[in-house]
Amino acid sequence: MKRPGAPPGTLEFTGERHLETPMLMRVNFNQETVDSQTFSNHVPLELAEGCINWYDVRGLHDVALIERFGQQFNIHPLVLEDILHTQQRPKFEEYGNDVFIIVSSLTYDGFNHELNEEQIAIYFGENFIITFQEKADDTFAAVRERIEAGSGRIRSRKPDYLAYAIIDGIVDNYFGVLDGIEANMEEVELEIQGRPNRETKENIHHLKFKLLAMRKSVMPLREAVGKFSRCESQAVEGSTGVFVRDLYDHVIRIADLIETYRDMLNGLQDLYLSELSLRMNNIIQVLTIITTIFVPLTFMVGVYGMNFDNMPELHWKYGYFYLLGLMVALTLALIYYFKNKKWI
Amino acid sequence: MKRPGAPPGTLEFTGERHLETPMLMRVNFNQETVDSQTFSNHVPLELAEGCINWYDVRGLHDVALIERFGQQFNIHPLVLEDILHTQQRPKFEEYGNDVFIIVSSLTYDGFNHELNEEQIAIYFGENFIITFQEKADDTFAAVRERIEAGSGRIRSRKPDYLAYAIIDGIVDNYFGVLDGIEANMEEVELEIQGRPNRETKENIHHLKFKLLAMRKSVMPLREAVGKFSRCESQAVEGSTGVFVRDLYDHVIRIADLIETYRDMLNGLQDLYLSELSLRMNNIIQVLTIITTIFVPLTFMVGVYGMNFDNMPELHWKYGYFYLLGLMVALTLALIYYFKNKKWI
Amino acid sequence: MKRPGAPPGTLEFTGERHLETPMLMRVNFNQETVDSQTFSNHVPLELAEGCINWYDVRGLHDVALIERFGQQFNIHPLVLEDILHTQQRPKFEEYGNDVFIIVSSLTYDGFNHELNEEQIAIYFGENFIITFQEKADDTFAAVRERIEAGSGRIRSRKPDYLAYAIIDGIVDNYFGVLDGIEANMEEVELEIQGRPNRETKENIHHLKFKLLAMRKSVMPLREAVGKFSRCESQAVEGSTGVFVRDLYDHVIRIADLIETYRDMLNGLQDLYLSELSLRMNNIIQVLTIITTIFVPLTFMVGVYGMNFDNMPELHWKYGYFYLLGLMVALTLALIYYFKNKKWI
Amino acid sequence: MKRPGAPPGTLEFTGERHLETPMLMRVNFNQETVDSQTFSNHVPLELAEGCINWYDVRGLHDVALIERFGQQFNIHPLVLEDILHTQQRPKFEEYGNDVFIIVSSLTYDGFNHELNEEQIAIYFGENFIITFQEKADDTFAAVRERIEAGSGRIRSRKPDYLAYAIIDGIVDNYFGVLDGIEANMEEVELEIQGRPNRETKENIHHLKFKLLAMRKSVMPLREAVGKFSRCESQAVEGSTGVFVRDLYDHVIRIADLIETYRDMLNGLQDLYLSELSLRMNNIIQVLTIITTIFVPLTFMVGVYGMNFDNMPELHWKYGYFYLLGLMVALTLALIYYFKNKKWI
Amino acid sequence: MKRPGAPPGTLEFTGERHLETPMLMRVNFNQETVDSQTFSNHVPLELAEGCINWYDVRGLHDVALIERFGQQFNIHPLVLEDILHTQQRPKFEEYGNDVFIIVSSLTYDGFNHELNEEQIAIYFGENFIITFQEKADDTFAAVRERIEAGSGRIRSRKPDYLAYAIIDGIVDNYFGVLDGIEANMEEVELEIQGRPNRETKENIHHLKFKLLAMRKSVMPLREAVGKFSRCESQAVEGSTGVFVRDLYDHVIRIADLIETYRDMLNGLQDLYLSELSLRMNNIIQVLTIITTIFVPLTFMVGVYGMNFDNMPELHWKYGYFYLLGLMVALTLALIYYFKNKKWI
Repeated sequence: MKRPGAPPGTLEFTGERHLETPMLMRVNFNQETVDSQTFSNHVPLELAEGCINWYDVRGLHDVALIERFGQQFNIHPLVLEDILHTQQRPKFEEYGNDVFIIVSSLTYDGFNHELNEEQIAIYFGENFIITFQEKADDTFAAVRERIEAGSGRIRSRKPDYLAYAIIDGIVDNYFGVLDGIEANMEEVELEIQGRPNRETKENIHHLKFKLLAMRKSVMPLREAVGKFSRCESQAVEGSTGVFVRDLYDHVIRIADLIETYRDMLNGLQDLYLSELSLRMNNIIQVLTIITTIFVPLTFMVGVYGMNFDNMPELHWKYGYFYLLGLMVALTLALIYYFKNKKWI
Repeated sequence: MKRPGAPPGTLEFTGERHLETPMLMRVNFNQETVDSQTFSNHVPLELAEGCINWYDVRGLHDVALIERFGQQFNIHPLVLEDILHTQQRPKFEEYGNDVFIIVSSLTYDGFNHELNEEQIAIYFGENFIITFQEKADDTFAAVRERIEAGSGRIRSRKPDYLAYAIIDGIVDNYFGVLDGIEANMEEVELEIQGRPNRETKENIHHLKFKLLAMRKSVMPLREAVGKFSRCESQAVEGSTGVFVRDLYDHVIRIADLIETYRDMLNGLQDLYLSELSLRMNNIIQVLTIITTIFVPLTFMVGVYGMNFDNMPELHWKYGYFYLLGLMVALTLALIYYFKNKKWI
Repeated sequence: MKRPGAPPGTLEFTGERHLETPMLMRVNFNQETVDSQTFSNHVPLELAEGCINWYDVRGLHDVALIERFGQQFNIHPLVLEDILHTQQRPKFEEYGNDVFIIVSSLTYDGFNHELNEEQIAIYFGENFIITFQEKADDTFAAVRERIEAGSGRIRSRKPDYLAYAIIDGIVDNYFGVLDGIEANMEEVELEIQGRPNRETKENIHHLKFKLLAMRKSVMPLREAVGKFSRCESQAVEGSTGVFVRDLYDHVIRIADLIETYRDMLNGLQDLYLSELSLRMNNIIQVLTIITTIFVPLTFMVGVYGMNFDNMPELHWKYGYFYLLGLMVALTLALIYYFKNKKWI
Repeated sequence: MKRPGAPPGTLEFTGERHLETPMLMRVNFNQETVDSQTFSNHVPLELAEGCINWYDVRGLHDVALIERFGQQFNIHPLVLEDILHTQQRPKFEEYGNDVFIIVSSLTYDGFNHELNEEQIAIYFGENFIITFQEKADDTFAAVRERIEAGSGRIRSRKPDYLAYAIIDGIVDNYFGVLDGIEANMEEVELEIQGRPNRETKENIHHLKFKLLAMRKSVMPLREAVGKFSRCESQAVEGSTGVFVRDLYDHVIRIADLIETYRDMLNGLQDLYLSELSLRMNNIIQVLTIITTIFVPLTFMVGVYGMNFDNMPELHWKYGYFYLLGLMVALTLALIYYFKNKKWI
Repeated sequence: MKRPGAPPGTLEFTGERHLETPMLMRVNFNQETVDSQTFSNHVPLELAEGCINWYDVRGLHDVALIERFGQQFNIHPLVLEDILHTQQRPKFEEYGNDVFIIVSSLTYDGFNHELNEEQIAIYFGENFIITFQEKADDTFAAVRERIEAGSGRIRSRKPDYLAYAIIDGIVDNYFGVLDGIEANMEEVELEIQGRPNRETKENIHHLKFKLLAMRKSVMPLREAVGKFSRCESQAVEGSTGVFVRDLYDHVIRIADLIETYRDMLNGLQDLYLSELSLRMNNIIQVLTIITTIFVPLTFMVGVYGMNFDNMPELHWKYGYFYLLGLMVALTLALIYYFKNKKWI
């Protein structure tokens, strides 16, 4: 977020810096030709005619560069602020004929239980599209390859379709994240059935946090994609609508899965607590059985360890053996009793 | 789902393959005649005039076959993609005058606690209907028999009514699934009242997961059937509406039952934990009673097992018997006390 | 429900049969006259002119009889199916100028904790009304008496008012059911404060199930009565609206009470678990106190029960008494300590 | 509620009777004059011209009196029924140009944890207003004083403003009730931090019930006041709207507070259970420490209490002292171990 | 709140008094000039022409002063009441062409876990704006500095933009509050993983209360800002809308975060209870192991401490050593058994 007290529209990068110098890539394409170029900083911002101009900007700390884009494409200061403050909720906004979209790109490292989040900002008009992100990851490689391959719908469409394709790719990754979380949940379930320990409950706990973090990205995305599908801006062609509605279905499905997984994690939490309770019951049963058998026996032998002058049983010839027999009988009776109560 | 990065509309079967070769069945019928034929692959796709053409396709891995249907019936690429990616949410969509529906067919094996799910895709226009599924199960046998029996409403209606009849049959099976789950819940309740063990809580846990999986299918189906009932496409006759609304009522009732069963399972979970707590209380009561009675006694006999030179009681004539009497009195007092506290 | 695979509109009674032969009652009335007649089967279905014709049908297994009604009054097959399949959700439907309503009649046996449910189907047009139920209970006795008493609004109104009066009577019984459940909840609370046992938690559990079952009937009823109050069919007079809205208020109040009672039952469940925890704490405190006092004492007397040749204390003149004094002192100290910690 | 089976609109008082004879008060006022009179029964019901006629009726068992009002002011029978059946949900209804409102007056006795509820029914037209309640409490004293004081807005307004003022006073009392509940919650929190006992959990339990009861009154009141603020009846002046909307804000705030307090009580319940768990842990730690230290020692002294002929250690000169030393060493080692594990 | 029974619109300060004398500041500004002046009481209320008049009022106990504002700016009595009763819900209201907004300013002292709340009331028309608060904190310092700096949008806009800027600053502080709460949650998580104690659960408990208090402020604020963004009053310029919508996004994000943090705190509560359960399991395991090993051994040595005349084993030459061997063997067997069961 911006510093408290700073006026709205203050341009200042507030995230963590990942890149030394910005990486810029410009892809100009139409149905006939593709032209990809990489720049380190001084990218020309004049739009080429007769083709789609895609600027892929990585590295946001260079505020001057972002401001150049702002001036050239006449971007509202609040949009520039949102691009630089990289903890926005996903959203869809129209500014005149241009469209501004924020999405979270998520990846999951199932082994270390780490969920990485990156804000992707997309701004497009009728013949240009700009994407902003801080990290160097080539998030859009698959989309660019499809453009360069020259086949398919993407070359013959407008920037709105490209924006759709980018978001679609990001949303596809969400399914991968959910698969990773599901795999971790299965590990946890096995752990609970085996030997639940301190780590088990922390795993449950961290998976819950992951889902909460993911939900924070997906819930507003649902709304944003819904607005995209109903958008009547000139920059969005009617024929893109059916694709965006399909995307909307995917986002809904992800939202459903997140809720389902949260319920499943609560189920695992319950299972874990039940397991602990059951285990405690079993341990205390053992304790009680041992105590109930040996404490009376110990008392009995204590009796005959007393030093009273007058204890007739001590002088019986078979007193000792009678007592041993009595103790065996008592033990058997208790064992029978516990067996009956199904404690053993 | 499609591979991440693959362009939307990529045709590729992503589910688990169940059939070696596709099984195809064509049923052409009108009020007068029925003609059922089975094909293994080279099914003629030209529509017969003056009758309803129903293609029942089982086995989806043969993408070329699906594409032939796509070209012949002019199906949108996203529809074909949804047919092949067999983990879609149930939905209802109109494409021009044609209608596309996805439903989940569920069966439950109550003995092994297994819920099987199969995606059924239905695509119909004014005089044809195509159903797609991967597995070889003859899901629509009952509907086909009604057609072949020649009686009833089904022969005189359009594909929309047939689509309704198919979904109605699938939804009827949901009640069977719920009956199976209810039977399992009753088993669990008996187990809890008898002797709750490790399996009890895993049964509760798995039943919860089943209901979550089922809800994932039913919630979107509710929406889809709602759209069907309000649909104004040419492919849907007005007089079908009353039937679809009846179907809608059934789906609502299933959704209600799922919620009710979830609440009941939470109740069983509470019952299980209460039972464990109560059992623990009882065990610890036993332990405490035994300890409270015997530990002081053992102490007393220990006292008179000491070897001090000067212990007058040891030399009393009836010292031993006095002590025995004292111990009996103490034990009776404790038993009375516990009885009073209702611990015994 | 109907058998899976059976075509919609199949007439087949699927509930549990309670009556040998159907009981039929026809009440024809207008403001001047009342004419009640009972039939066992061959009831004349021609409507009398100038009066309201009320057919009260008990016993549904005689499908032919139901079909006669269907033909005579031109009832849609799906309505007949709903009448015979006696596990429908409450609902309100218009068929042309006729109206079809399903309600659940509930009674509660608080002593045995049994909730009985019976489906009541009501079908009425401008001058006739038919009520269907399976059991022989004279559910509508109170309403019929009011008609026969000849006083009041009911004689001068149309079937819509009679339908309202019937549902109003059924809903009034719901309050009785809730009173019964409330009484049982108070018993449970007393049990928890007294001596909670295995039955306590099963009572809580069963009351929860009762409320879930009741909610399953009331939630759709709310919707149905809401539709009734907004209904613009010719069969419903405007002046009935104010009564139906009053009924709607009652249904809402019942729905509120059910939610409140569910929250209260959850509160009782919490109370029960708290009570068990507290009780466990107390038991373990007793155990710990006994152990902490006697185990060290037992150790001390064990020391002087050893047989070492050289144990000077044994030969002190007052060794035994010193030790007794020491043990008394230790015990007092421990008791003081526990008192201080408020364990005793 | 009315007796089940009684026709709707049956006039019968079903609450608990609090008054021997009804208390009636008539306040006629306009901007110039006020005239308050008290009657025990035979109150004249003819309206005075040129002023507001306020009838304050306390005591509802005299059905004939209520019926006189009904006839004189042409009140719908269902309204009279609602007045007499004193367990209605709060509501707002228009009957022609007249308005009928039901509100619950709540008072809280924080010392005895008692929530008292009284149904207030308000019926007003263009120049009269009637208020009905069963108990003798002078609920409207403050409002009447403001009228008699002759200052302020209330003298120059219509009955709608008076109705607003009455409800506003009742809602103001809700804040007092909530303050009482909050004070009790703070007591409970202190109890938990001190020494939680059986009463603590019952206090939590009863506070929950109070909030549930209060919510039952407030939720429908919100709806009723909302309708009041949007009401377009002739009996409600436009300029009253801004006051009713302010009242609406208060009701919303109360509803918010109730939800917040419920969450806080759940928090206290959790805190209580955590406290019990922690306490149990501590008790069992003490038990385990005592056992772990003394049981092995007792075993050791038991060894040298045996009477074998050949036990060399017994005859060592310093055997006894070696053993004492060993036992001291073991005890210190265990204490060190427990300190290390932070158990002591 | 106002005293129960006081007429609506009664002017009386009901909060806690923080200031001896009110502090008043008047800032008159337009694009060219700024004029800030401080007054202790007798502030001139005549509006300067051609500029925005901002009155910043701190200290509300001086009712006469508030009434002067009320008369001069023609403020509705209910607004004055809301300003003085400083526990209102945040809200947005239009009075003719003027706008009245209530917001809560929150600050968090993470070290002492204290959340401070202050009601800010904002009233503005076309060329004036008045802000009211009780405490002396210079809440609007940052905004005033931006005005005095003379740069930026704020100087060229109307009071609506200034109101937006003030609320935006307050909302920015909410993120700081949430950061503080998040830091405290992380401390709690570390405590749980280390050594959970009595304070841990109270910290969880207090953080829950903080979030509940915060939610009470944020939920109505969401609604209020939503109304602001849709407001069509003359006092609100169209171009301010885009800024207010941005603010709305921030408020939504805060509401999301609060819900997420509440879920996380529930997760921490679960984690804490799991940790206690696990710890209890471990302690009881230790107890059971010690008991299971030593109680039988103690029994065995007790046997040979008995004084029967005829106990042959006592006279065996190596009886003592045989027994020692047996006891070692038994101990090893038990240790092996526990290792096997993974208890050690």
